[in-house]
Amino acid sequence: MGHLINTNGAFLARELADLGIELSRQVVVGDDLESIREAIREASLRADLIIIGGGLGPTEDDLSREALAQTLGLPLVENLEARENLESYSWRRGTKPSPRVYKQALLPRGAEALPNPVGAASGAYLEHEGKIYVLLPGPSQEFAAVVKEELLPRLNKLLQARGEKRAVITSRIIKVMGLPEAAVASALGELLQSCNPAVVTLVTKGEVHIKLTARASDHEEARRLFAPLEEIIHQRLKDHIFGYDQDTLEEAVGKLLREKGMTLATAESCTGGLLGHRITNVPGSSDYFLGGIVAYSNEVKIKFLGVPLELIQIYGAVSPQVAEAMAKGMREKFSAHVGIGITGIAGPTGGTEEKPVGLVYMGIDCQGKVQVEKRNFVGDRENIKWHASQYALYLLWRHLKS
Amino acid sequence: MGHLINTNGAFLARELADLGIELSRQVVVGDDLESIREAIREASLRADLIIIGGGLGPTEDDLSREALAQTLGLPLVENLEARENLESYSWRRGTKPSPRVYKQALLPRGAEALPNPVGAASGAYLEHEGKIYVLLPGPSQEFAAVVKEELLPRLNKLLQARGEKRAVITSRIIKVMGLPEAAVASALGELLQSCNPAVVTLVTKGEVHIKLTARASDHEEARRLFAPLEEIIHQRLKDHIFGYDQDTLEEAVGKLLREKGMTLATAESCTGGLLGHRITNVPGSSDYFLGGIVAYSNEVKIKFLGVPLELIQIYGAVSPQVAEAMAKGMREKFSAHVGIGITGIAGPTGGTEEKPVGLVYMGIDCQGKVQVEKRNFVGDRENIKWHASQYALYLLWRHLKS
Repeated sequence: MGHLINTNGAFLARELADLGIELSRQVVVGDDLESIREAIREASLRADLIIIGGGLGPTEDDLSREALAQTLGLPLVENLEARENLESYSWRRGTKPSPRVYKQALLPRGAEALPNPVGAASGAYLEHEGKIYVLLPGPSQEFAAVVKEELLPRLNKLLQARGEKRAVITSRIIKVMGLPEAAVASALGELLQSCNPAVVTLVTKGEVHIKLTARASDHEEARRLFAPLEEIIHQRLKDHIFGYDQDTLEEAVGKLLREKGMTLATAESCTGGLLGHRITNVPGSSDYFLGGIVAYSNEVKIKFLGVPLELIQIYGAVSPQVAEAMAKGMREKFSAHVGIGITGIAGPTGGTEEKPVGLVYMGIDCQGKVQVEKRNFVGDRENIKWHASQYALYLLWRHLKS
Repeated sequence: MGHLINTNGAFLARELADLGIELSRQVVVGDDLESIREAIREASLRADLIIIGGGLGPTEDDLSREALAQTLGLPLVENLEARENLESYSWRRGTKPSPRVYKQALLPRGAEALPNPVGAASGAYLEHEGKIYVLLPGPSQEFAAVVKEELLPRLNKLLQARGEKRAVITSRIIKVMGLPEAAVASALGELLQSCNPAVVTLVTKGEVHIKLTARASDHEEARRLFAPLEEIIHQRLKDHIFGYDQDTLEEAVGKLLREKGMTLATAESCTGGLLGHRITNVPGSSDYFLGGIVAYSNEVKIKFLGVPLELIQIYGAVSPQVAEAMAKGMREKFSAHVGIGITGIAGPTGGTEEKPVGLVYMGIDCQGKVQVEKRNFVGDRENIKWHASQYALYLLWRHLKS
């Protein structure tokens, strides 16, 4: 029904690829016994490893255990380790397990429990007629914990025990900001025809990602395959490449600030704190991020950032003059090396013909040297906030890098 | 390979359910011609409406047009409307379309273009041998725009033209905060056995959602089916229900602040701006949200929030005393009715035996009346930040409601 967004699939694909296991297909069905059984049956014809996520909770619509047991013709039996897991989970939270949750200790006969360190529902691991069946709890934090701590070590051991030297499928992402996808594709040119590694471009949240995918005997060989392409791509796009793989723009900015021994403070109007949130998602950001002011009202801009009232009266709160004054005021008030000021119209209301929704001014004051950029972003309120925070980080990155 | 998270599937499921069309299965495959063709073939055996998302970009790995055309044995031909769409998209951005993008004007013969108001790639709509095939661009903003502006009106018209009075499948979400799932399930008791509407519970990001799903002849009848259950659930859980359907906790808080004519200011340490970001995701939040201070360093806590240095020296920055002083200082500095102060350890480092990672103190000063709560959250840095912002919003909601 579309109530939840599936983040487990992407996580699982990354982790399995790392072991050389290709996630060839993901299937999503409703909480319906027959649909789940059918999906398991079909998957077992197609694949050697069938992983079922979700449906291990304590309620009536949690049907994955039953579906797997029925599909394989096995009874559900209480598993001692799964029982201990749910009891110790309750105890750690200072509660007694309710009778309802004991359903979560039932597993298909022959399955091993995959204990869940952050929840009541253990997963299950079952080898049956040459295939491996895995049950995993659905909540993403529990899913990730059981995959990392229980499933991956088991799969790794199995591959080693079988003496299989598997080809690993490895990808390398090169992250580009400040260019449209078509421009990146033009710069890549003939490289897009390459087979191993294959080269493709992807667009996500204001960034263009160049993805290299290689099939190799091991990670070492994959790295050797990537190296010459990375070198060429770097030559062609170096002014726009801010990171690789799981790197984020906020990490790239943090790294440069740390290298230069500089501190940062942020003055946010339309982004409402999102920029500070993203900067502080980076562990250790307290070394260079002093803090910021969310100046949502004009009074706060004037009183706490020292923006002159006349600037707001003459040019309006959304203007290059006010963005500059916010950046400057922020840097001075917090005694930081760099101040950022963002002011704009996130919508959906508040736009005019002259200043439409999506208009954002971003100012950077780096030790007294100020630059301001204007952008018109499209999309809904959250999109506009995101793109404004993204572009401000990009300006800062570009400035720190040059 | 897990590089992107699929948000389109959930969006599509919601929109289709609203027309009474059940999204019975989602299949995710790689950018590989044969895999896409196989997925289309299988889907056409199972369903009447086959929607293919993604793979309409300008690059070599964008293969959905080819896969659909080949599966149905149709040639790809240039579609004038799709061509105009990509040219006008380029012109609006002040660029000339590059030769590469003209691939995006090719559609299977007989298909109508579904113009894309926010991107270069049009979708396609094709009736073929009694089935409907739809191509949609992958980037989520473009996907949503083409679904809403082009696809849904066409499907709606088709259902009407066929004179089909379809049963609609409608769900109603009742959102609960401050109780574990098992406690909610206990309170629901016999209601979990109900068939139409069916009642299930879901856990997501600190909230428990009670989902009622009804099959009815129209939305009016569905509402009549929901009403008595909603009434009972409301009686049993009213102190914990903060919203319905797409409602968010930040909206519920905003609504109460607006009703009471009160203003809010936030002092954030470990959440780094996330609380302000969430509050300002609500359109119109400038009516009650004055702004905030992200007090990441102790100097900022002292200088801008007036937290006494001695409090930090005696109790540490992560302490109930400092959370209280932050809330109080915030309220006073910004002359707000309500001040919030959050201080904690988001990790992964910085924890001690006495003050572990995940320890967070949240203070609320409501017109001089202060309360502080302590919580130990689990998970990674972003999880801890999220839960701290979520719990602070919950405390504020509970306080404003009482």
